[in-house]
Amino acid sequence: MLPRTRYVVDGPKTLPEMTWPEVATAREGTDLVLVGIGACEAHGRHLPLGVDTIAGIDGLRRIAVALEAQGIAAVPGPTIPFGVSPDYMSFPGTITLRPSTLLTVLREVCGCLAHHGFRKIVLFLTHDGNLGIMQAAAQEVTADGLARVLVLNPLPVVREQYPRILRSKGREGHAGEGETSRFLVSQPELAHLDRAVVWQPERAPAAPWDVPIHFGGAVFDPPLDLRTHAPDGSIGDPALATPETGEKLWSIITEFSCQMIRRHFLEA
Amino acid sequence: MLPRTRYVVDGPKTLPEMTWPEVATAREGTDLVLVGIGACEAHGRHLPLGVDTIAGIDGLRRIAVALEAQGIAAVPGPTIPFGVSPDYMSFPGTITLRPSTLLTVLREVCGCLAHHGFRKIVLFLTHDGNLGIMQAAAQEVTADGLARVLVLNPLPVVREQYPRILRSKGREGHAGEGETSRFLVSQPELAHLDRAVVWQPERAPAAPWDVPIHFGGAVFDPPLDLRTHAPDGSIGDPALATPETGEKLWSIITEFSCQMIRRHFLEA
Amino acid sequence: MLPRTRYVVDGPKTLPEMTWPEVATAREGTDLVLVGIGACEAHGRHLPLGVDTIAGIDGLRRIAVALEAQGIAAVPGPTIPFGVSPDYMSFPGTITLRPSTLLTVLREVCGCLAHHGFRKIVLFLTHDGNLGIMQAAAQEVTADGLARVLVLNPLPVVREQYPRILRSKGREGHAGEGETSRFLVSQPELAHLDRAVVWQPERAPAAPWDVPIHFGGAVFDPPLDLRTHAPDGSIGDPALATPETGEKLWSIITEFSCQMIRRHFLEA
Amino acid sequence: MLPRTRYVVDGPKTLPEMTWPEVATAREGTDLVLVGIGACEAHGRHLPLGVDTIAGIDGLRRIAVALEAQGIAAVPGPTIPFGVSPDYMSFPGTITLRPSTLLTVLREVCGCLAHHGFRKIVLFLTHDGNLGIMQAAAQEVTADGLARVLVLNPLPVVREQYPRILRSKGREGHAGEGETSRFLVSQPELAHLDRAVVWQPERAPAAPWDVPIHFGGAVFDPPLDLRTHAPDGSIGDPALATPETGEKLWSIITEFSCQMIRRHFLEA
Amino acid sequence: MLPRTRYVVDGPKTLPEMTWPEVATAREGTDLVLVGIGACEAHGRHLPLGVDTIAGIDGLRRIAVALEAQGIAAVPGPTIPFGVSPDYMSFPGTITLRPSTLLTVLREVCGCLAHHGFRKIVLFLTHDGNLGIMQAAAQEVTADGLARVLVLNPLPVVREQYPRILRSKGREGHAGEGETSRFLVSQPELAHLDRAVVWQPERAPAAPWDVPIHFGGAVFDPPLDLRTHAPDGSIGDPALATPETGEKLWSIITEFSCQMIRRHFLEA
Amino acid sequence: MLPRTRYVVDGPKTLPEMTWPEVATAREGTDLVLVGIGACEAHGRHLPLGVDTIAGIDGLRRIAVALEAQGIAAVPGPTIPFGVSPDYMSFPGTITLRPSTLLTVLREVCGCLAHHGFRKIVLFLTHDGNLGIMQAAAQEVTADGLARVLVLNPLPVVREQYPRILRSKGREGHAGEGETSRFLVSQPELAHLDRAVVWQPERAPAAPWDVPIHFGGAVFDPPLDLRTHAPDGSIGDPALATPETGEKLWSIITEFSCQMIRRHFLEA
Repeated sequence: MLPRTRYVVDGPKTLPEMTWPEVATAREGTDLVLVGIGACEAHGRHLPLGVDTIAGIDGLRRIAVALEAQGIAAVPGPTIPFGVSPDYMSFPGTITLRPSTLLTVLREVCGCLAHHGFRKIVLFLTHDGNLGIMQAAAQEVTADGLARVLVLNPLPVVREQYPRILRSKGREGHAGEGETSRFLVSQPELAHLDRAVVWQPERAPAAPWDVPIHFGGAVFDPPLDLRTHAPDGSIGDPALATPETGEKLWSIITEFSCQMIRRHFLEA
Repeated sequence: MLPRTRYVVDGPKTLPEMTWPEVATAREGTDLVLVGIGACEAHGRHLPLGVDTIAGIDGLRRIAVALEAQGIAAVPGPTIPFGVSPDYMSFPGTITLRPSTLLTVLREVCGCLAHHGFRKIVLFLTHDGNLGIMQAAAQEVTADGLARVLVLNPLPVVREQYPRILRSKGREGHAGEGETSRFLVSQPELAHLDRAVVWQPERAPAAPWDVPIHFGGAVFDPPLDLRTHAPDGSIGDPALATPETGEKLWSIITEFSCQMIRRHFLEA
Repeated sequence: MLPRTRYVVDGPKTLPEMTWPEVATAREGTDLVLVGIGACEAHGRHLPLGVDTIAGIDGLRRIAVALEAQGIAAVPGPTIPFGVSPDYMSFPGTITLRPSTLLTVLREVCGCLAHHGFRKIVLFLTHDGNLGIMQAAAQEVTADGLARVLVLNPLPVVREQYPRILRSKGREGHAGEGETSRFLVSQPELAHLDRAVVWQPERAPAAPWDVPIHFGGAVFDPPLDLRTHAPDGSIGDPALATPETGEKLWSIITEFSCQMIRRHFLEA
Repeated sequence: MLPRTRYVVDGPKTLPEMTWPEVATAREGTDLVLVGIGACEAHGRHLPLGVDTIAGIDGLRRIAVALEAQGIAAVPGPTIPFGVSPDYMSFPGTITLRPSTLLTVLREVCGCLAHHGFRKIVLFLTHDGNLGIMQAAAQEVTADGLARVLVLNPLPVVREQYPRILRSKGREGHAGEGETSRFLVSQPELAHLDRAVVWQPERAPAAPWDVPIHFGGAVFDPPLDLRTHAPDGSIGDPALATPETGEKLWSIITEFSCQMIRRHFLEA
Repeated sequence: MLPRTRYVVDGPKTLPEMTWPEVATAREGTDLVLVGIGACEAHGRHLPLGVDTIAGIDGLRRIAVALEAQGIAAVPGPTIPFGVSPDYMSFPGTITLRPSTLLTVLREVCGCLAHHGFRKIVLFLTHDGNLGIMQAAAQEVTADGLARVLVLNPLPVVREQYPRILRSKGREGHAGEGETSRFLVSQPELAHLDRAVVWQPERAPAAPWDVPIHFGGAVFDPPLDLRTHAPDGSIGDPALATPETGEKLWSIITEFSCQMIRRHFLEA
Repeated sequence: MLPRTRYVVDGPKTLPEMTWPEVATAREGTDLVLVGIGACEAHGRHLPLGVDTIAGIDGLRRIAVALEAQGIAAVPGPTIPFGVSPDYMSFPGTITLRPSTLLTVLREVCGCLAHHGFRKIVLFLTHDGNLGIMQAAAQEVTADGLARVLVLNPLPVVREQYPRILRSKGREGHAGEGETSRFLVSQPELAHLDRAVVWQPERAPAAPWDVPIHFGGAVFDPPLDLRTHAPDGSIGDPALATPETGEKLWSIITEFSCQMIRRHFLEA
C-alpha cells in the first residue's frame, strides 16, 4: 500500500513556480537570485529523504521575504534536488551525484540565470556534502565572467547557537533536534516524530579546530558509510524538536544570510 | 513585491517525500520505480516554468495509484527538474542543461536506484525536448547491466485524442488547451487562465509522417528560438482548458502507461 | 583463408570521395549537406556488419540525386561507420560507441561542416539505436548556433508499407525481407541470401502505440542482449528479399526524405 | 551537377564487410586484428579528401594478404574515417576530430574488438596527424589490460626509399608523387592526375633530426593553417605518379608491417 | 639577462626524491601518505609564484618529521604544483587549472597511491583556492573505496594566532607578514624582502562568521580579479617577516596536523 | 626512519621560482617559454622516481642559458611532475595520469602561458611515455589559435651518440648509463650509484626502423608491465655513469634544442 501525504505549500513563488512574465518583471527589479543546493539522502527514520531540498526551497523563500522587508529585491530561484551523498548510499532511497556532475549542473544552471541577467547569484547550502563543489562552482562561474557568486553556509552559524536554543544536552547532528525543528516549520506533515530514534554516541573531546570544514572547522574526513556512525541515519534526540525551536533557528539563518548578501553584494 | 502562492500537495508519497524505512519497505514489495524527467521552461503567460516537473511528479503518482488498483506495486521516484530546453532560452527564467549533462544525471540517478535494488526503471516523459537523451540513458543503463529501462512518451498517445476531447478546433500545442487542462488538475493554483493568450498560427497541411519524433512522427527539426514560432511561449487557446478535460487526458496517459509497464516489465 | 569480395561502387560522389575543389564548387551552389549515421553490428547470417553504413552512403546518394532532379542541390556528406549498438555485442564483430561518444563525434562533424558554410545539415538514420543521440546532436548543434539540423528517420515510413509491398506475411524486422531487399540494390555482392535463416517469433498483439519510438511509437525498451530475441541476429524471412522490393522501398525512403527536406529547409 | 564516380572494390573482406559468422570463424583462427586510422582532409586538387581512409582500408587488406602468405592469420578490421586535421580546416570539406575525441573513439573501438577476443590489435597509420593519439590510445588500451596494441607508422619507412624509387628530384610530401602513386593502385578512379599542381617550395637544409616525429624525427611543430605552406593542399609533383611506383611503395609498407607484426606479436 | 638563484634543499625525502625500493620499504612500515596541493600564482613583489608549492613540500617534510618523533611513520608524498587560481590571472606567470581538472588529477594521484597500498591519504592545503576541490576529491576517493582521505586546512588555525605572534598590527593576508615569515624558513633565498610593498586596505568591521570558508568562516565570494583588491598581489606588511615568526607559525601548523592525523587515522 | 637528503639547486630561475614582476620583465623581453613534461616513475634501484621531472627542470635551465649565450631570450617555465607511466605501476611510488588527463593539464597550462603573452611554447620531453600526448597537446593549442607549439624530443638525438660516448658496450636504456650520467650533473645527491643493478637483456637484432617512435623509429608497442622486461626498473649498467659523460650528453641535448628553437621559431 503506497504511503500517502497531504501538505500545503505557501509563500513567495520560487522561479519554477513563476510564469516567464513574472520572472521578467522580477528581473527588471533586481539582478539578485538565490539558488538552493539540496540532496536526496536518508534523514533518520522520521524525516523524508528530501529534507535538504525542502529546506533549500524554504530557505530561499524566507531569505527573499526578509530581504524584501529591508527593501531589497531578490528572486527565490531553483533548488537542485540532488547532492553529493555517497556516504549515505547504504540507506535505501539515497541518490547521489558524482562531484564533477554536480559541478557541471551548477555551472549550467548559473550560466542560464546569468543569461537572463541575474549577475548576482547566491548559492545557499543545506547539505554539508555539497560545500566543496559549491565553492568550485563559485570559482568557475566567477572566472568565466558570468556572474558574481556568493556561497552561504549557515550550518556553523546556526550550530553555534545550539547550546543556547536546543532542549537536548547531548550531541545533536544530522536529522537531530535542530534540523528536525527547522523541518517542523518548513513542511511538518512530512515529519514523523513518533518514529524518531535517539542516537547520541560518545564523542572524544575535540581538539581545537577539529571540526569539519562545513561546520567552520579545519578538517574534512568523509566516511565511507555513514551507517557505521549513525545506524538509523540520524544523530541526536529528534523527538525534542519543536516548531518554536525551528523558528528560532530559521531566523538565525535568515538574518545571517541577509546580512551577508547585503555586505557582499550591496555594500561592497 | 514578490508574487506569492499557496497550494496543496496531495497523493501517494514520491521517493524524496518518504523516509528511508518507507523506501526500504516499498522496495521489498517491488523492484519497479518510476522517474519523471521535467523541465524549467516558459509555458505561456499563464503557466509556471515548472509545468513539466510538476506534471512529472503528478504523473508518477497517478500511474502508481492506477497500478496499485491493478495489484501492481510501483514506487513513484524522483523527478528531474531541468531538461534540454535551449530553444526556450529567450524566455526569462528558462533553465536548460546540455544534453550530455542530462545524460550523466540520468545515468547516475538510475545507477543509485539500481543500487537500491530497483531493477525496473520507468523514465516518464513530460517535456518533448528530453526524449533523445532519455533514449540514450535507457541504452546506457541497460548496456551497463544496471537495470532494465522503459521510456514512456505519452505525448503522441494523448494528442491523438485531442480532436475528440478538446473544445478548441484550432491548433493546440505547447501550453495550449490540452497541457493547460492537465495542469488544472495537477496544480491549479499555479495556473492563471486569465493571462492566457491565443496563438494559433496557420499550418501548411502536413505531409504524411511529417510530425516530430516525440509526437510519433519521423522528423526532428529543433528551432533555434521558439519565440519566433510562439511569441508568448504558448500555442493554442489555453483559456478553453477545464479540469474535466484535464482528467480525461490524464486518464489516457495513465492507462497507456500502466498498459506499457505491465506488458514490458511484467508480461514479457 | 580470408573471405574475399569484389563489388562496384557507383553514383554521385560523397564528400570523402570528392577533392576539396569539388567540395568548394558544390558548396558555392548549396549550403545543404546530408550526413549518414551508420553502425557496425550483426545483421543476420546473410548480411555484413556494415549494412547500416552502406545503406547510409547509398541513401545519401539517392536523396541527392532525387533532389537534383527537382532542381535542388545537396551534397552527399560523410557517413559515420559506428553507432550505438550495445545490445548486439554478443554477436562477434559488433562495434559500439557509448552514446556520449557518438554525440561528441556528431557535434564535431557537424561543426566542421558548418565551418565550411553548410548551414543546413540533414542527419539521415539507418540504425534505430542512433535515434536518441541524433536528436540530442540536432539540439546541441542548433543551440550552439552552428547550423539548422534536420533528423530524418525513414524507418516508420517504410515499415508502414511493408504489408503492401513485402512477400512475407510474418514478422519482418532487423535484417529481414525489407532491409535485405534494400541492401540487394545497395551492394548485392555483400549479401549471401543462401545463408539466410528464418526467424519469425510469435508476437503478442500490440497495444495501441506500443511500438518503439524509432518506429513511430511511444515506448522504448532496449534489450540487454538482442540474441535472446533473435538468435541469429535477424528477424523475418530474408530469403524472400528481391531487388524489385528493394527499389520500391528505397523510393519510399527517398521520396519521404526529399519531401521533408524541401518542407523544412526550403519552404519554411 | 553532382560529380559522379564508379569504381571497383576488390580484395579480402574487412570486418564491416563480413557477416558476424564470418568474423566468428576468423576469430577462432586468430586473435590478431588490424585497424586503420584515416582522415577526411584536403589532398591537393587531384585526390579525394578520403585518401587516408581509403589507404587505411587498402593497407589492412594488403597486410592481411601478405601475412596469410606467410601462414599467419589476421583480420582486416575497421578503419576510422576521421582523424586529427585542424591545420587543414581552411580547405573545404576537411573534417577534424579533437584529439580527445579520437582517443575516446579508438579506446571504445579497441575495447569492442577485445571484447570479441581480439587480444592483439594493430593500429595502422595513414595520416601523420593521428600519430600522437594513436600512441596514447595504445597506452590506454594496454594499461586497461584489454589487449596488446602495436602502432605502425609506415611513413618514415617508405619515405626513406623515395630518392631511390620516385621520379621526382624535388621535395615530395603530402599528396605528392609518393602518396599519389600509392593511391593509383588503391583506388585509381578517384584520382585526377590532370588536375595535379606542382608545388615544391625551397627548403632550407635540415639540421640533423629536424624531421617531424611522424617521419622518424625528433620535433613536431604543427602549423595553424597548412594553406600557408601548401596553397593547393599538396606538396611535390603528383603528375609524376605511376601505378608501378605505387606498387613498389606499398610493398615496402606491407613488408615492414608484416615484419613488425611477426616480431612484436608472434616472436616476442 | 635571466635572473638566477641558488638554494639548498634539505630534509627527509619526499616520494619523488626516493627510489622505488625506498618507497617500498617506507610503505611496508606505514600506509599513511601526505600529499601537498600547491599553486603557481602571484605572491606579491617579493615572493615567487611557487610559494604554495614550496610550502606544501616543506609542510609534508615537517609533518612527517614531527610524526616520526611521536613514533608514527608517514611518507611525504608528491605535491601538486598547480591549483585553482583564476582570480590571479591578471598577474603575469600565474597558472590555473579548472576545478574539474584539478579534481581529476587529485583522483588519479590518490588512486595511484592507493594502488601502492597507501590506504590513508592526507591532503595538505597551502592555497585557499584549492579547498573546495580538495573536499570533492576526498569524497570521490573515499566513495570509490580507494582509501580514507583527510583534508587538512591549517589556514584558520594559524591565522587565529596572528594577533599573538605577528609584529604587524594591521591586516595581514596573502603573502603578508605571516606567509612571508613561513617562507623565510622554507626557502629564504627565493624571498626578496627588499621588494616588499605595504598594502593594508581598510576593512569594514566583519559581521560574525563573515570570514571565507577556507579561513573557518561561513561565506565564499571569489573575486573576478584579485588585482582590484591587492594591486601588487600581497596584503599586509611583508617586510616585518622574520624567520623566528616563521618557525612559530610552522610549529602551530605542524602540531595541528599531527594531532588531526593521529585523531582521525590512528585513534578513530 | 625517514630517508633524508640535502642538495643544492642552482641556475637561472624557472617561472615558479620567479616573482610576478620578474615574469613580467622577462615576458617583455621575449614571448618564448620552455615547458618541461616530467614523470614520477621507477628509475632503477639507484635513481629517484622524479628523475624525469628533475631532468625537465634542468633541461629548461640549460636551454635557456645556451639560448641567452646566443642572444636569444627564453623563459624557463614550469615542469609537469607527472606523466603517462601505466607500465611502471608495479613499481612502488609510480604515479601515472591517464593520457586524457595529461592532455587537459597541458592544454590549460599552455593556455595560461598564452594568456600572459607567451605565443611561442616549447614542450620539452624527458619521459618517452609522454610523447603522444605532447603531440596531441601541440595540435590542440595550435588549432585553438592560442600559441605556436614546438615539441622537442631529445631522446633519439642523444641515443644516436651513445656508442660514441658511453663506456658501456651493452644495451643502455631506461635509467642506464646514459640517463644516469645526465642525472649525475643535474642532481647528484639524489643518485645512489652503489645500488645500481646491471641488467642488459639479449636483444634480437632489430629490423630496420624497429625502434619505438620516441626513439626515432616507426613502431610503438607499450608493455603492460615494464617489470617483465626490467625486473629492477633499469636497463643497462648504470654504475658506469660519470659526470663527464653526463655533461657531454646534456650538451648534445642543449645544442639540438637551441638549434630547433632557432629554426622553428626564429628563422621560419
